[in-house]
Amino acid sequence: MHLFNRDQIEKVVQLNKEVIQVIEDAFTALQTKSVQMPPIMRVDVPEHNGEVDIKSAYISGYDSFAVKLSSGFFNNPQKGLPSANGLMILLSSETGMPKAVLADNGLLTDIRTAAAGAVAARHLSRKDSKTAGVIGAGAQARLQLEALMQVRSIERVLVFGRRQEQADVYKEDMERKLGVDVIVCRSPETVVTESDIVMTTTPAKEPIIKAEWMHPGLHITAMGSDAEHKQELEAKAVLSADLFTCDVKSQSLRLGEMRMVHENDKAIQQALELGEITSGQKQGRSNSEQITICDLTGTGVQDTAIARFAFELLDSKGGVYR
Amino acid sequence: MHLFNRDQIEKVVQLNKEVIQVIEDAFTALQTKSVQMPPIMRVDVPEHNGEVDIKSAYISGYDSFAVKLSSGFFNNPQKGLPSANGLMILLSSETGMPKAVLADNGLLTDIRTAAAGAVAARHLSRKDSKTAGVIGAGAQARLQLEALMQVRSIERVLVFGRRQEQADVYKEDMERKLGVDVIVCRSPETVVTESDIVMTTTPAKEPIIKAEWMHPGLHITAMGSDAEHKQELEAKAVLSADLFTCDVKSQSLRLGEMRMVHENDKAIQQALELGEITSGQKQGRSNSEQITICDLTGTGVQDTAIARFAFELLDSKGGVYR
Repeated sequence: MHLFNRDQIEKVVQLNKEVIQVIEDAFTALQTKSVQMPPIMRVDVPEHNGEVDIKSAYISGYDSFAVKLSSGFFNNPQKGLPSANGLMILLSSETGMPKAVLADNGLLTDIRTAAAGAVAARHLSRKDSKTAGVIGAGAQARLQLEALMQVRSIERVLVFGRRQEQADVYKEDMERKLGVDVIVCRSPETVVTESDIVMTTTPAKEPIIKAEWMHPGLHITAMGSDAEHKQELEAKAVLSADLFTCDVKSQSLRLGEMRMVHENDKAIQQALELGEITSGQKQGRSNSEQITICDLTGTGVQDTAIARFAFELLDSKGGVYR
Repeated sequence: MHLFNRDQIEKVVQLNKEVIQVIEDAFTALQTKSVQMPPIMRVDVPEHNGEVDIKSAYISGYDSFAVKLSSGFFNNPQKGLPSANGLMILLSSETGMPKAVLADNGLLTDIRTAAAGAVAARHLSRKDSKTAGVIGAGAQARLQLEALMQVRSIERVLVFGRRQEQADVYKEDMERKLGVDVIVCRSPETVVTESDIVMTTTPAKEPIIKAEWMHPGLHITAMGSDAEHKQELEAKAVLSADLFTCDVKSQSLRLGEMRMVHENDKAIQQALELGEITSGQKQGRSNSEQITICDLTGTGVQDTAIARFAFELLDSKGGVYR
């Protein structure tokens, strides 16, 4: 068994079209193959304001699968440490034997999450989308934009962050890194009103996005909510979208934006999973006027897909990294 | 983060009184401390007749906790590989950061499972027990006996294995290793009838132990059943014990010997958890005539306890093993 650390993984796994395709294929597999994906396991560490989530998925026919631990310890920043952490263990599907520990500190999760955003945008946003709106100015706000720009020709970015300084740094970073104009906005309303694609990347506990701001042709990817106490979109926004999609319905209902909508509501019945669209079973955006939403809570198939991909790259450089 | 392999772990963790005490303390903690122990997560790999179980537990006040992956891939023996495999990840309770990967291949699970048997025997079997009966002749049949001999002065061992040859090898191995007389029996009935303490260590799907074989003063530890399709004791045995105990009631009801007993039955209501006894909250064996049973399905607190113990030992030899 091999242990790879973040530095080693960072050198070989990039947020590019290839990784986006790997994640798209994972969503397709979730619909078209037999997949064993147990509910997320969660260990709480209340004394230290921490939690560990454990995800896994076995995709039929794949020679390996991952078990991922991801932790959030929210007192860490006070100690000068990042709150998020994690690692993945890749196991052989044939023997159950561990093949590798990817001690990625959450890097692969960051990348697969951003890649899922790009997959959603590819199938749900207007092809001629030019303006991207970003709510939040942290790590995912950066990566979601980077991933989006692999699939859409974005010319202008609007950003809103609760802390203005953070949004200013975001502007500076993204303009330098991606060569795109970034405008810092004073309200989320402006961002939504002026954008073709909006990405919400916050740990908000109260909705930030109002239904009344949505306009024809808009696509929203809400990737922030992944726990019972989080919510980024008001329920009315979910209800009034023309096409509401999510990565996994059962998770969106429990941890995501469908949580505040009544389970028997028509909107829930009609909601699609991303894999139904990527597999071609169902249609994504069908005209330029639709308002579409995709709610991402994060899935074990994404973890299995990116862990396998990373291991293949690392393993092929065996001489260097072992 | 450090990766320790089985060879390294094997050199420092022995099945001795110290480890038995560590596991006893874990059961006590399960009753007396605030413990976060989510239900076992299971990933099935049906194509390869495999499964991975994931267990974890955070014990309030402990500076670290473990997440354990244990796999059973039942086509492995055909390939000349062991069916069981596994590893543990030790995380800091303060920051969530991984401290170590213990790639123990199931060694620590084997030890903590045997140690739990010794804890049960210490509190539930007669102090003057001289004859131990073992059903099954595999790895746990060996370890359970080894652990038992740390807490009881066993003079004679009766063993029954489905395959006579395996039982013969068991006799030879145990006589050499433990210096005790081992008698191979032709039926489980003889083993139960003649023993003071019986340990069942099989993956049986149909009960092997009948209630009518039980006799005053007997203690049985049933550690084989840990899944919905397994059972070692007939329901009547569970019902007619004077004192039925288990490691965790919810697990015994779902995966263990309580599964075949009606949930509202008085026997279930009166069943005790091992930690209630080790903590002194409830009494274990109270006289020499009682028939006692302990059903072990395996718990995350045992994993956390032994992973911490192993890491402490390995870490103190840092110079050697890092």
